[in-house]
Amino acid sequence: MGSMYAQEMANTRRARIISPEVTKDSITFRFRAEYATTVSLTGSWQNRGESAIAMKRDNNLVWSVTIPTLQPDLYYYTFNVDGTTVCDPANTSIDRDGTSYRSIFLVDGKHSRHYKDASVRGNVSAVWYDSPTIGAKRKMMVYTPAGYDDNKKAKYPVLYLLHGGGGDEEAWLSLGRAAQILDNLIAEGKAVPMLIVMPNGNSNQIQSHINDIPGQEASTLAQNNIQSDLYVTSLIKDIIPYIDSHYRTIAKKEGRAISGLSMGGGHTLRTNYLFPGNFNYICPQSTGAHPHNQKNTAYAFDENTLSNYLEGIKKAGYKLFWLGCGDADPWFAEAQELDRLLTQHGMPHTFYVTGGGHEWKNWRHYLDTFAPLLFK
Amino acid sequence: MGSMYAQEMANTRRARIISPEVTKDSITFRFRAEYATTVSLTGSWQNRGESAIAMKRDNNLVWSVTIPTLQPDLYYYTFNVDGTTVCDPANTSIDRDGTSYRSIFLVDGKHSRHYKDASVRGNVSAVWYDSPTIGAKRKMMVYTPAGYDDNKKAKYPVLYLLHGGGGDEEAWLSLGRAAQILDNLIAEGKAVPMLIVMPNGNSNQIQSHINDIPGQEASTLAQNNIQSDLYVTSLIKDIIPYIDSHYRTIAKKEGRAISGLSMGGGHTLRTNYLFPGNFNYICPQSTGAHPHNQKNTAYAFDENTLSNYLEGIKKAGYKLFWLGCGDADPWFAEAQELDRLLTQHGMPHTFYVTGGGHEWKNWRHYLDTFAPLLFK
Repeated sequence: MGSMYAQEMANTRRARIISPEVTKDSITFRFRAEYATTVSLTGSWQNRGESAIAMKRDNNLVWSVTIPTLQPDLYYYTFNVDGTTVCDPANTSIDRDGTSYRSIFLVDGKHSRHYKDASVRGNVSAVWYDSPTIGAKRKMMVYTPAGYDDNKKAKYPVLYLLHGGGGDEEAWLSLGRAAQILDNLIAEGKAVPMLIVMPNGNSNQIQSHINDIPGQEASTLAQNNIQSDLYVTSLIKDIIPYIDSHYRTIAKKEGRAISGLSMGGGHTLRTNYLFPGNFNYICPQSTGAHPHNQKNTAYAFDENTLSNYLEGIKKAGYKLFWLGCGDADPWFAEAQELDRLLTQHGMPHTFYVTGGGHEWKNWRHYLDTFAPLLFK
Repeated sequence: MGSMYAQEMANTRRARIISPEVTKDSITFRFRAEYATTVSLTGSWQNRGESAIAMKRDNNLVWSVTIPTLQPDLYYYTFNVDGTTVCDPANTSIDRDGTSYRSIFLVDGKHSRHYKDASVRGNVSAVWYDSPTIGAKRKMMVYTPAGYDDNKKAKYPVLYLLHGGGGDEEAWLSLGRAAQILDNLIAEGKAVPMLIVMPNGNSNQIQSHINDIPGQEASTLAQNNIQSDLYVTSLIKDIIPYIDSHYRTIAKKEGRAISGLSMGGGHTLRTNYLFPGNFNYICPQSTGAHPHNQKNTAYAFDENTLSNYLEGIKKAGYKLFWLGCGDADPWFAEAQELDRLLTQHGMPHTFYVTGGGHEWKNWRHYLDTFAPLLFK
């Protein structure tokens, strides 16, 4: 198509360093740095507090290190170059978590197979809806399963999937791999085709703050207290009605599930405490019953109040109460307490305990684990 | 919501360096680097070949430089730290162009006002469609204007907007700001509400290669020659029928426009050469009539063939032929040649010449300029 086009395309094909190189037995990271005196590697497979992994320079100015292969999972990492943290310029796959950008790679295997792209995929949309409760038009992400746009009559159930503190409406699609997990589960016949609705759980935002380009007015809704009940109220009053009126949904509790991680786990519980009877499937992750002594937060309440909330959920009825938490999660004691209270109230539930802590490795796995249980 | 949630949120609010700081008169860039010996700044406002701008370190290990304010526009930049190129860690707004990630900022003003978020916005979806022509399910991005989902009866015209070499289906949404430009033009009543369809123009890809996570099988369609006519054929045979059957469109040439930059400008012309009569609005950017001596590319043809192509477009009829090019663009001579040939064939057209070269600064401006002329 002419020399200019050819040049453009040649640029994209320019010989690159391969990093990371993922083989059956090992993973090699490489970084070209002409002037650096120290380059090191930090990755999500390391334990908290573990030292960065030193890299060595060869004669071609390429720093590298090879590590033994890891358990099948999705991992993220960064390089530290003379004190500056950078993504891997040889790896174009970058995921964002809150305001952090990190390079990612996959170690393939049974545990991680649903984190890969499926051959048949659903669509993902950024959808603007009006939230009178919060007082703004706000953005949410909506996943519709493969076939939704072709099958003009079928009605679909909906999973409301909530992010954690510091996250936003894109978190479950980025490191959470929610679209890939559902694409794969649905393709394998393990999960029912369903919509996933991923709102922004920060009631002081209209969308992720990464859209606040310097030089453009910031979009923060300063008047909204993020720890108020504005968001969970908007979920019931604004978001669910929007979804049920704009998509072909099963618009009743039998067709609704809710899950969230950390702060989103809190939102999951709080929504059902304040508005019981809207979801047949309640799947909080990395959260639990709040300690009784937290009087200084908007969500603190005594055991009596909590008992009343749980009785409200019990009375409204539900089909699945699934609580996931890692035994190294700072919220594990609270999760254990919720497990105890649910038992005490005679409420059937699953307490799904894994290793690991407050991390995406667990939250991806929890979604992959409970999604097949929904709407059946 | 408890100490853990509070900690998460506090992390996101941690005191940060402000960079870039965009004021009325100046722009200040800052970068904290403990061990660096040289830090410099490179930005899209610089001329090609211009030296990086040196930054100076203060006593707090923060490197900075202040430059006078720039013409209103969207700009991107990177820092070079001891030979390593990095995005600005203090700026969470990052745009991608091909495989390059860069920090961005906006200088507000008349020229750039449509590049900012509008108060009322359309939705943007990642849509998977089947392309029998290319032999794969492929991804495209689809913008639907505000109101589309509420107004269940109205039919909308469609702009097919094509990226350049090295780009992909997300290019026009990223540095191209296509959604913001149309949101603003529509909100101001300057453009007709329309859909924008942004396919992937690389016939050897099913979607942007940034989704090829290391460790996951690559998705390249190796058998497809990117310089063949596969893509423009799929546009007519696969993409337009999909859009017309899945969206409420004005499914005839009166309701269709096509534009593209560079390689996408070539695709814009080629589509109309091979399949005249599908678009009433033809708006190539940074492209033109191919030099006659390029016998070694699939798209080379003699003046006689080109004359026949142009006569085909003339005979099929069109309402707008709008060609945009910068006078410093390497394709400017070809654009001048196309302008001359269109005149020679008695084909009404606009040759919109600006300063500047082969750059997003121009392509954003061209979209902002011709979109108000469509479907009227």
